[in-house]
Amino acid sequence: MSNASSANVQIQLPDGTLHEHPASTTAMDIAKGISDGLARGVIAAEISGRVVDANRPLGELSEDDQPIALRLLTSRDAEALDVLRHSAAHVMARAVMRLYKGVSLAFGPTTSGGFYYDFDIPEKISEDDFPKIEAEIKKIIKEKEPFERFILDRDEARKLCDDLDQDLKVEHIDTGLSDQSTVSFYRQGEFVDLCRGPHIPDAGKIKAIKMMSVAGAYWKGDASGRQLQRLYGTAFFDKKELAAYLEQLEEAKRRDHRVLGKQHGLFAINPEVGQGLCLWLPKGARVRVTLEEFLRKELLTRGYDPVYSPHIGRVELYETSGHFPYYRDSQFSPLFGSEAGGLVDAWNQRLVDGTLDSDSEEKLMEAAKVLGAEFPDYKSSSSSEDKQKVLHRWQTVHERYLIKPMNCPHHCHMFKAMPRSYRQLPLRLFEFGTVYRHEQTGELNGMLRVRGLTQDDAHIFCTGDQVEQEFKATIELTKFVLNAVGLDDYRVQLSLRDPNSDKYVGSEDNWDHAEGALRGVLENSGLDFNEEPGEAAFYGPKADFMVRDCIGRSWQLGTVQLDYNLPERFKLEYTGSDNATHRPVMIHRAPFGSLERFTGMLIEHFAGAFPMWLSPEQVRVLPLSDKSLEYAVAVAKQFDEAGLKVTIDNNDGKVQAKIRNAQLDLVNYMAVVGPKEAEAGQVALRDRIDGDLGSMPIAEAIARLKDEIATRKVRQAVKSSLSAAAAVDSGATGHEY
Amino acid sequence: MSNASSANVQIQLPDGTLHEHPASTTAMDIAKGISDGLARGVIAAEISGRVVDANRPLGELSEDDQPIALRLLTSRDAEALDVLRHSAAHVMARAVMRLYKGVSLAFGPTTSGGFYYDFDIPEKISEDDFPKIEAEIKKIIKEKEPFERFILDRDEARKLCDDLDQDLKVEHIDTGLSDQSTVSFYRQGEFVDLCRGPHIPDAGKIKAIKMMSVAGAYWKGDASGRQLQRLYGTAFFDKKELAAYLEQLEEAKRRDHRVLGKQHGLFAINPEVGQGLCLWLPKGARVRVTLEEFLRKELLTRGYDPVYSPHIGRVELYETSGHFPYYRDSQFSPLFGSEAGGLVDAWNQRLVDGTLDSDSEEKLMEAAKVLGAEFPDYKSSSSSEDKQKVLHRWQTVHERYLIKPMNCPHHCHMFKAMPRSYRQLPLRLFEFGTVYRHEQTGELNGMLRVRGLTQDDAHIFCTGDQVEQEFKATIELTKFVLNAVGLDDYRVQLSLRDPNSDKYVGSEDNWDHAEGALRGVLENSGLDFNEEPGEAAFYGPKADFMVRDCIGRSWQLGTVQLDYNLPERFKLEYTGSDNATHRPVMIHRAPFGSLERFTGMLIEHFAGAFPMWLSPEQVRVLPLSDKSLEYAVAVAKQFDEAGLKVTIDNNDGKVQAKIRNAQLDLVNYMAVVGPKEAEAGQVALRDRIDGDLGSMPIAEAIARLKDEIATRKVRQAVKSSLSAAAAVDSGATGHEY
Repeated sequence: MSNASSANVQIQLPDGTLHEHPASTTAMDIAKGISDGLARGVIAAEISGRVVDANRPLGELSEDDQPIALRLLTSRDAEALDVLRHSAAHVMARAVMRLYKGVSLAFGPTTSGGFYYDFDIPEKISEDDFPKIEAEIKKIIKEKEPFERFILDRDEARKLCDDLDQDLKVEHIDTGLSDQSTVSFYRQGEFVDLCRGPHIPDAGKIKAIKMMSVAGAYWKGDASGRQLQRLYGTAFFDKKELAAYLEQLEEAKRRDHRVLGKQHGLFAINPEVGQGLCLWLPKGARVRVTLEEFLRKELLTRGYDPVYSPHIGRVELYETSGHFPYYRDSQFSPLFGSEAGGLVDAWNQRLVDGTLDSDSEEKLMEAAKVLGAEFPDYKSSSSSEDKQKVLHRWQTVHERYLIKPMNCPHHCHMFKAMPRSYRQLPLRLFEFGTVYRHEQTGELNGMLRVRGLTQDDAHIFCTGDQVEQEFKATIELTKFVLNAVGLDDYRVQLSLRDPNSDKYVGSEDNWDHAEGALRGVLENSGLDFNEEPGEAAFYGPKADFMVRDCIGRSWQLGTVQLDYNLPERFKLEYTGSDNATHRPVMIHRAPFGSLERFTGMLIEHFAGAFPMWLSPEQVRVLPLSDKSLEYAVAVAKQFDEAGLKVTIDNNDGKVQAKIRNAQLDLVNYMAVVGPKEAEAGQVALRDRIDGDLGSMPIAEAIARLKDEIATRKVRQAVKSSLSAAAAVDSGATGHEY
Repeated sequence: MSNASSANVQIQLPDGTLHEHPASTTAMDIAKGISDGLARGVIAAEISGRVVDANRPLGELSEDDQPIALRLLTSRDAEALDVLRHSAAHVMARAVMRLYKGVSLAFGPTTSGGFYYDFDIPEKISEDDFPKIEAEIKKIIKEKEPFERFILDRDEARKLCDDLDQDLKVEHIDTGLSDQSTVSFYRQGEFVDLCRGPHIPDAGKIKAIKMMSVAGAYWKGDASGRQLQRLYGTAFFDKKELAAYLEQLEEAKRRDHRVLGKQHGLFAINPEVGQGLCLWLPKGARVRVTLEEFLRKELLTRGYDPVYSPHIGRVELYETSGHFPYYRDSQFSPLFGSEAGGLVDAWNQRLVDGTLDSDSEEKLMEAAKVLGAEFPDYKSSSSSEDKQKVLHRWQTVHERYLIKPMNCPHHCHMFKAMPRSYRQLPLRLFEFGTVYRHEQTGELNGMLRVRGLTQDDAHIFCTGDQVEQEFKATIELTKFVLNAVGLDDYRVQLSLRDPNSDKYVGSEDNWDHAEGALRGVLENSGLDFNEEPGEAAFYGPKADFMVRDCIGRSWQLGTVQLDYNLPERFKLEYTGSDNATHRPVMIHRAPFGSLERFTGMLIEHFAGAFPMWLSPEQVRVLPLSDKSLEYAVAVAKQFDEAGLKVTIDNNDGKVQAKIRNAQLDLVNYMAVVGPKEAEAGQVALRDRIDGDLGSMPIAEAIARLKDEIATRKVRQAVKSSLSAAAAVDSGATGHEY
């Protein structure tokens, strides 16, 4: 921070004009200078890409002698909603503290659907208490008190929190913030909270707020730590937006893939098998088979080569790739080939972390000996590094496997399995590869967030010159795949490097070339896309497809990522046309993302009613009575031979009941057959969406159904008109490789 | 053993006739009584299903008052070869002891291709020493000395081995044979060996013997134990059989799938990824995709339902199934969700094994505490069982997963995922499920013996009444699958229970019914089959397909197994038509066995040259020169659009060289194109086997090739006429679930 506070500052507005103001001027002051109406609408400000309070003196925020680029944020700006919701969390906390005794505040962040605040409160809060809390919240909002920021040094901050009996905040200052000399607080009336901000100018900006739910939580997410109560809420600038959001939530509930998955026998998750591990039941598996066959055929046509790799690999493989031990918290533990393996692993980790005392060291060594692992060189090693080397040497001669968290290392070894020439590039290796990641139990969500996921993965090994054409082809492929399932509302997020950071691997030239190529392809594609500088992975730029479903929720699906890192780490090489050795570029891509997540999303998008080509039960033959059963079987046989997924309802009962059941089971077509149809060699075809289609010859019905499959027609019974603006959290997760 | 030795015994010959003889009569005596020629041919005898020395007094062998069923075994009986080879192992050991000093004998069993003997010899033996050893062996054979059996009690046996300086035998008497009061020895001249037998009457029966190779081995297979030298040899009753066997071995070497796999880029196994873990490279993966799609289509037609399950499951799942901890040695270690998991597991195992001393116990407890696991109830537990319970309780609340060694437990849970009625049975769940087993490194063999194998697995859940129809259908399916790849020389081994054993689960009625049903189906199938009483798994009878490849080697491929055990353990139930609850029967079946093993076998069977429908490169377009490249691309496009696997050879060089390369690459067809063909819209088609087929319109070529695929024609360039009798060890392994 410059000490420009005593001098004037130069402000640049979005229109490019420059204005000189005293350093104490705030964004709100500037808004007022333009118009009172604008000032009333200001929620926060964006200063050189950073969102800050509208009431901060701008002099505090200039970091160099450059003019300050200022953008005023109103409720129409996407960033403003997050500020509003965080302030709403403070207001809720304030209300709770007014109503309950002995409240310890933990954290109160926003989520993509609203906000929450974690409390340690002696009294147990239930949804029955919400009206009381909401009433108090409304009182606070009505008072329109401002949010005021102030700074304390660590000792003062600690004392303040201590005085306020906020022991969790004290602990956080001591541990989480131990590297900061000063910390910021926000005051709103009697409510004071340790907080980075930013906040809205005053509570009156909150026009719509609702408490949503209460759940258990742990202090800092540590299951062995203090148990807290988490209160969820949401807030909007407008009552209509809240209503739309609640309607969308209701609609999402009706479409919940976990409920539909159980109801229609699509998949099951069973704690006896394992949390987050998906059992694809016959109906769900039929959808997956169709998706896989569809994509495999498409990939073979597009010049991809199939491969299969095992689901485990030696730990050393992931040490080479760099995925171990750095991502160990999100991976399943290794499988050890030796009884002492787990102990030595934990021991080594303590050395790396610097948390091993000599007493523990002695005990681990003794136990390792009992388990058959001795380390004669260990005691003579003086440094922790030397000790780690002794343990690691032992580990590499004993078997350690990791259940694979990604497919890339295996594919790199396939590239290396024979000498490669430029004539073989691009080499496109694809696989439906199931990978395993140890997501936290609380994060798991049906098929959408799992511990075992099958990526429709491929790695393209190409020359630098081929990056553009390959990127273009993967974008085309992803569009093709999304359109095939009727998802046509998407945009692309292009993540680029932060030019000021040095965390990126690969040469400047490569990055410039690649980013330029990617941007060029997207510009020519006619796709809606936005650039996110600084959001690239350290190993290369990437493009993610953000897809909106029919109830307006946004999902991150297909991804395309360039990689300069793994070719380097695995020392991949090919011989160029110049007879010299070159390093290829690697492209990771997955149009579905994962079969689990994609199918889960499809279940919700279609509310379980798959379009004909994906449907696990395309047509059901309904005999009027037992007398028509023989004809029904003959009809079903013809449907089956034509490649249709057909069943027969041979239950007793009236045909009306059979139709109702077929509708409830979301079967696409019903073929009703009675004596009349049998005599004429016909079926009375019924469409789940459009109802009765009349009688027709079997061949005509087959042709009609097969045409709907071949053209991959997507018809939805209900197309929701829900506001796209009110995005529900779809649990979008990045796919970093 | 009865004490009938002093009395007469009743002998029943295979023709059913009964003969009374003194108890001291031997099988050889009886042979002599029939004819001297027969006596010269007798190798051993079979007494009530057990193979014994021809020179054993029959009185020793009667176990009750029933007549002794005697079968004389000559070189024409399959069982005789094994006896011969075991005796050959003794002869080899005798020769070695004559030539080398300080020889400690370990074990000398037979293999399916011959025999070996493990020795601890100070001097290192190499293949250069074989002529010397073989010369000594021939000398011994020429002497035609008899094999003489004698019995000692344990102390005498121990003393004899000690006197002979055979320390490994002493150790084996002390440990492996500690439960036997007497043990048998065989003497041949100066050579005496602790041995169960049986043996040939005299060494002169060995008409053909050859030393094959030398390798390292460990005492009792324990890699931390004493290192031994293993000498392999083989023996036959006839020099011609030996010659045929050696020719077959040579042919097998030329067909070695590991060599062909590398040469043609079919698969790779890389120690950096992991021993025994198969990386399917594009060409091999194309074969697998074809096999999977072929079988999936067939299964869907035959009323199977697809499913997918994860590759891991909670250890408790396998405790329920009974696969853990009993098979832990052949499984990968569990993945532990807790740092102390591995230690607690090893600790618990020592309690189970009864090998935990109190000092080790203390050390393990201390180290567990360091790793965050404390057991307050442990110390107060007095019995080992109680202590195990304490540890197991801890284990079940902490996560432990096993990488799945089989798919059945997952499929059982799919059965249980919803209420089942008799109307849904048979429920046939299929999956290409990759399972992992920790085979010993020395046992691994390319794709044939791996640590990760993809079973073309299915589980059929049916009523007892449906067993016959389902078994029949699986037999039909397996025949269909084998015939599709041109394997038409097979027989079925039907493994039944031992009626005298009580190790079998499930009621007598069930077994009687099932065995009868299986036998009936096989009798009606027209298949060659043999029954093996006592070879059934404890959970049900099974049928295995033994398939002979084109060089006469026998492979155990498809398997069908009934299971009464898992439905019980997983408490599977369905509601019958009587509205009561019933337990289904489960059938495991896999027509390929595993994709890895099946494909490895196919590579050897076809010597890498896959038939058209399985081929990864069905046709290659060869332009005469660059000038025809454009037309070549157009031709290839047409082939591709017709669904053919096509490539273009766009290298420089003469077409003769391109043809040679295509032949070497085992491409099924070549389409040569030059200006003449371009003008006429034709290709000059060339068959890898039959050579030039002349020019023809592209459409005609496509039709011809597509017809060969559609009819799954199997044509082989070379059909070996090798003796089917000389079976090479194909590494056949049982599939017990």
